[in-house]
Amino acid sequence: MGKPKIGIINVTGYAGVELARILLRHPGVALTSVTGRSAAGQKLSSYFPHLVDTGLTIVAKLGVVDLAFSAMPHQESAAEIIPLFESGIKVVDISADFRLKNPADYDKWYGFTHPAHHLLKEAVFGLTELYRSQVASARLVANPGCYPTGAILALAPAIKAGLIGTDIIIDSKSGVSGSGRTLSLGTHYTEVNEDVAAYSLSGHRHLPEITQELNFLRPGRSHMVTFVPHLIPMTRGILTTAYAPFTPGKIPSKEGLKKLYKEFYAGEQFVKISDTPPHTKHTWGSNLCIIYPVIDERTERLIVISAIDNLVKGAAGQAIENMNLMLGLPETMGLEALPVYP
Amino acid sequence: MGKPKIGIINVTGYAGVELARILLRHPGVALTSVTGRSAAGQKLSSYFPHLVDTGLTIVAKLGVVDLAFSAMPHQESAAEIIPLFESGIKVVDISADFRLKNPADYDKWYGFTHPAHHLLKEAVFGLTELYRSQVASARLVANPGCYPTGAILALAPAIKAGLIGTDIIIDSKSGVSGSGRTLSLGTHYTEVNEDVAAYSLSGHRHLPEITQELNFLRPGRSHMVTFVPHLIPMTRGILTTAYAPFTPGKIPSKEGLKKLYKEFYAGEQFVKISDTPPHTKHTWGSNLCIIYPVIDERTERLIVISAIDNLVKGAAGQAIENMNLMLGLPETMGLEALPVYP
Amino acid sequence: MGKPKIGIINVTGYAGVELARILLRHPGVALTSVTGRSAAGQKLSSYFPHLVDTGLTIVAKLGVVDLAFSAMPHQESAAEIIPLFESGIKVVDISADFRLKNPADYDKWYGFTHPAHHLLKEAVFGLTELYRSQVASARLVANPGCYPTGAILALAPAIKAGLIGTDIIIDSKSGVSGSGRTLSLGTHYTEVNEDVAAYSLSGHRHLPEITQELNFLRPGRSHMVTFVPHLIPMTRGILTTAYAPFTPGKIPSKEGLKKLYKEFYAGEQFVKISDTPPHTKHTWGSNLCIIYPVIDERTERLIVISAIDNLVKGAAGQAIENMNLMLGLPETMGLEALPVYP
Amino acid sequence: MGKPKIGIINVTGYAGVELARILLRHPGVALTSVTGRSAAGQKLSSYFPHLVDTGLTIVAKLGVVDLAFSAMPHQESAAEIIPLFESGIKVVDISADFRLKNPADYDKWYGFTHPAHHLLKEAVFGLTELYRSQVASARLVANPGCYPTGAILALAPAIKAGLIGTDIIIDSKSGVSGSGRTLSLGTHYTEVNEDVAAYSLSGHRHLPEITQELNFLRPGRSHMVTFVPHLIPMTRGILTTAYAPFTPGKIPSKEGLKKLYKEFYAGEQFVKISDTPPHTKHTWGSNLCIIYPVIDERTERLIVISAIDNLVKGAAGQAIENMNLMLGLPETMGLEALPVYP
Repeated sequence: MGKPKIGIINVTGYAGVELARILLRHPGVALTSVTGRSAAGQKLSSYFPHLVDTGLTIVAKLGVVDLAFSAMPHQESAAEIIPLFESGIKVVDISADFRLKNPADYDKWYGFTHPAHHLLKEAVFGLTELYRSQVASARLVANPGCYPTGAILALAPAIKAGLIGTDIIIDSKSGVSGSGRTLSLGTHYTEVNEDVAAYSLSGHRHLPEITQELNFLRPGRSHMVTFVPHLIPMTRGILTTAYAPFTPGKIPSKEGLKKLYKEFYAGEQFVKISDTPPHTKHTWGSNLCIIYPVIDERTERLIVISAIDNLVKGAAGQAIENMNLMLGLPETMGLEALPVYP
Repeated sequence: MGKPKIGIINVTGYAGVELARILLRHPGVALTSVTGRSAAGQKLSSYFPHLVDTGLTIVAKLGVVDLAFSAMPHQESAAEIIPLFESGIKVVDISADFRLKNPADYDKWYGFTHPAHHLLKEAVFGLTELYRSQVASARLVANPGCYPTGAILALAPAIKAGLIGTDIIIDSKSGVSGSGRTLSLGTHYTEVNEDVAAYSLSGHRHLPEITQELNFLRPGRSHMVTFVPHLIPMTRGILTTAYAPFTPGKIPSKEGLKKLYKEFYAGEQFVKISDTPPHTKHTWGSNLCIIYPVIDERTERLIVISAIDNLVKGAAGQAIENMNLMLGLPETMGLEALPVYP
Repeated sequence: MGKPKIGIINVTGYAGVELARILLRHPGVALTSVTGRSAAGQKLSSYFPHLVDTGLTIVAKLGVVDLAFSAMPHQESAAEIIPLFESGIKVVDISADFRLKNPADYDKWYGFTHPAHHLLKEAVFGLTELYRSQVASARLVANPGCYPTGAILALAPAIKAGLIGTDIIIDSKSGVSGSGRTLSLGTHYTEVNEDVAAYSLSGHRHLPEITQELNFLRPGRSHMVTFVPHLIPMTRGILTTAYAPFTPGKIPSKEGLKKLYKEFYAGEQFVKISDTPPHTKHTWGSNLCIIYPVIDERTERLIVISAIDNLVKGAAGQAIENMNLMLGLPETMGLEALPVYP
Repeated sequence: MGKPKIGIINVTGYAGVELARILLRHPGVALTSVTGRSAAGQKLSSYFPHLVDTGLTIVAKLGVVDLAFSAMPHQESAAEIIPLFESGIKVVDISADFRLKNPADYDKWYGFTHPAHHLLKEAVFGLTELYRSQVASARLVANPGCYPTGAILALAPAIKAGLIGTDIIIDSKSGVSGSGRTLSLGTHYTEVNEDVAAYSLSGHRHLPEITQELNFLRPGRSHMVTFVPHLIPMTRGILTTAYAPFTPGKIPSKEGLKKLYKEFYAGEQFVKISDTPPHTKHTWGSNLCIIYPVIDERTERLIVISAIDNLVKGAAGQAIENMNLMLGLPETMGLEALPVYP
């Protein structure tokens, strides 16, 4: 029979090429088709010199595969995926096109009317730690955004346990690769180096995604989330610092808080609860998420910090983790590499 | 008569050498004496090759000066300053030794018993925009910490006007020069590059300073401040993102908020209220503080972002601004240089 | 009479805005007109938020000025400058359009036929240290390229003295601002960060400029120059390492070499001969060039290393140095700022 | 029987921890013992948080192993290795202690008298591509220095073929991890960031190693090598630009040169000859060496550029490549990971 055949739609962006990097060394699948509009006809190893060891050529239209990843921009991704899905191919979508359950959110946050409302129900939100069993049987997985991955994993144990109130502030610091490979003045080297700034103050598109999932964790509650992303001068990594008031009378001990988090993520291969503030560097190039919950004694607030590599756990790695589950492979297959430090 | 003679105690750290850089080009004073323990006897321009244009030699003991800056570490700074002050010399202290008004805070936060309680009353907190007239007549100025400078300037207008409640979260991102020139693994290049992490989660020493000054702005109130500093891979700059709930019924219009901030800082040469999220790069090498207040409509919170160069407005620049006032010189003298971009 | 009126053609690139930064604080001239095609109509301080202190508006066409800087790309710069020059306005050209004396070089290296051969003779090559008196009486100054500035200053003393042969290798390392503000994948943050590469191996456009000037230093000789520029992950700075064999029998002592260089640059305010390998950081933001000549005893080769800030001594600063001479002002006026360290 | 047991002496430096990162995922061996003086008693995964998945504890003295890597500093490494070797354990030495064949070089370049001259003959220089068969049967491998690896691989084909003369200039640019994990002002973040400088101008310790190996490639010839290393602001990577005159009458065609290099490295898994100037980023985190030979037509010089990750092919990766050969395992085992880009 051979290994399952895998395709990548739009391999030429950073999420796409990161999928290729990992899949080319994945022992359980075969990467057989990669698409890219402007680069069609070029050898993958010429377009990306670090992918030294492949004979693949970038094509305009996806070949026959068993499972496809879409790394297209939003709206275009849905257009590619819908016919694939209907023809029976399993799909993991890296874009936002199937993450939000309320179709109106696409009009409001993404500026287009979603073309397949029924698939929003069908799609499983691919935050593996929260939706593992649903992912395993899914035919369409909406891979989470990079910021939501770090933020939701940081807050889920506390919300699930009813430890904190609804007033949540999420302050995230991201490396520049999260902005993609498309050129812009804001990601021009000389503008980003030796600089830090906040952006999307009027509302980042990952806010509805975060709020949706936090609300799902405790049905009936509506969280008031302030989310401010910042761009910092590094290539990979997101550090998220989340703040929330403890529910009155529910302030745990230091040990109790740590225990709660460790139990919530017991058995998880890619989530570690740390005893010291995490560094994004300690996740670099890997699918790891490191979480550090701490009590601000003076103010009775919870602070939780999470660190991920935005291109791995925040995009391609988690997508492959989901693929593994969808294909019945071990969840960690192809993702065992340790972070590259320093 | 000649220009006032100025001295720097401990010129060999980053705050000290930044003082030297600016003072060597200051038209109204003469830098005549610089000290440094281990480097005593060396020419200043050999020790710091960028200071090409000076014949000064680093000495062990300060010469005769009219005004001295102390860039010593805390506790040691007080020991140097007290005799100077008593001999009638004006002093600007870059360390924390005279910033806190409650002597017990030194035992609690800095681990030593303050040797001169009476001078804590005498000392003026040198946040120039808030204490200009007191600075002008001061004999001892406690120059604010780098984080407090950005945080207090960001929040002062809103607190003074009673716009916000007492629940304040301050999330700061600092370049590495704020950690000084002393070696540590945490500031080793390969550890900091491509990394971001929070630190001092159990309470940073700048927290009591921030809280003290926010409380002074609205006597009778006690702010509940959570302050989390982060180290990011750049040399200079602090971006502070502050979050606070609006006082119920006091939510201003977007224009009203901007107007309030502009009026508060009307006439200030070194504070600019911007229409877009500020970049630390736009303050690089200058005494500028850029502030951006914005309303998070969904959650009825105030977000204020401020950007400074931690070594200029956050240390040496503001110290010289204070010196100018203490000596009756124009406040901006020697500090007119525009930020260096990109 | 008032101060001379100065204009900048194309203020929106990095050389243009660096001219503006320095000129806005220059005590002897008035910056009165700045042009920029796509940005015409915008306030200069909105387009560049660090230029806080100016009421200038970017215009499409240069106003009436006494001296103009052109920071246009090559070929377009000549088109702008020729009518200005003919109308009697003094001009400093930051582009390459008047640097090469042989008109055929423009066809060969820049791909266009030069429109004003007679002005190639008229123009003075603005490497101030070598052409000071000619610059003072010039009406048109061709400001040197960033790489040639560092390379020629490094080699001039040795060539002039006949110390070295004609086989010269120049290996330069440049920050990214040298590539300008125009977007390209090669200057996208994530591509440049954590990377170094050589470029223009088939011949960089600064090669004929370097060769021309090295040959002028020793008429009758033709230097065989290999020049390889490298892009490294920093914003500002060029370090040039030049290698050449000593003329047989002409190997100086260590002290003799140092003395030769110090005498060659005696009295120069912006050139320093150092006793240790120079760091670009020690020139950051200033008009300084630091030069370190050393003898490789084992191989009887001369190694000379020079460090500059590519946007100051390598572009805007040197252009203003030339302007000062052309207007009869002190050469260092407006350029006294010390390098910003760290 | 079980997998061969592997030990690392001094796991706490960057070469040591990089060995651990790779060995912990190596399918053919078991990392069973790691030493570190000051860190003895600590869990490896606490000391290095990225090594999440190991129960190893750092010990003071190496346990029983089949093969040991020494990542000790020079001189101390020999002291550790000699008794191990005599007890029959295979050793790969990351230090310089067995690289040089002439004992006097240790007195001259490293300042100590080598304690085991006979082992200098016994040791095989572990540049795998040049010494593959000797490595396979070696009991002691001297792993090459990071700079020599890139420089020798770049020049070997041309020297072997007699294409070039003996006048060789090697200009290398290294990331900061090459300077190790020991603190120094020169590797303090704020000193290295936004800076580039040359160092070791009086003779870097890798020079005798490079010269020795270049001479071995063409017995009877003595190369005149100038080697200047530069430190640039990045964590990993060495780019080497080598210059040499072609032997008169031996200038190849562009295609001929490419062919020569491709044939020399035919079948090599870790060396690629590229068609464009290589980027260190394209080797990041991998054992790859990318080489680009080019003819400078104007001057009849050869320019060869090579890119490696200094901690992988320049240290730990190549050491494991050698271990694989010494243990009869496939040469690429455990080293298949593709470079991490961007």
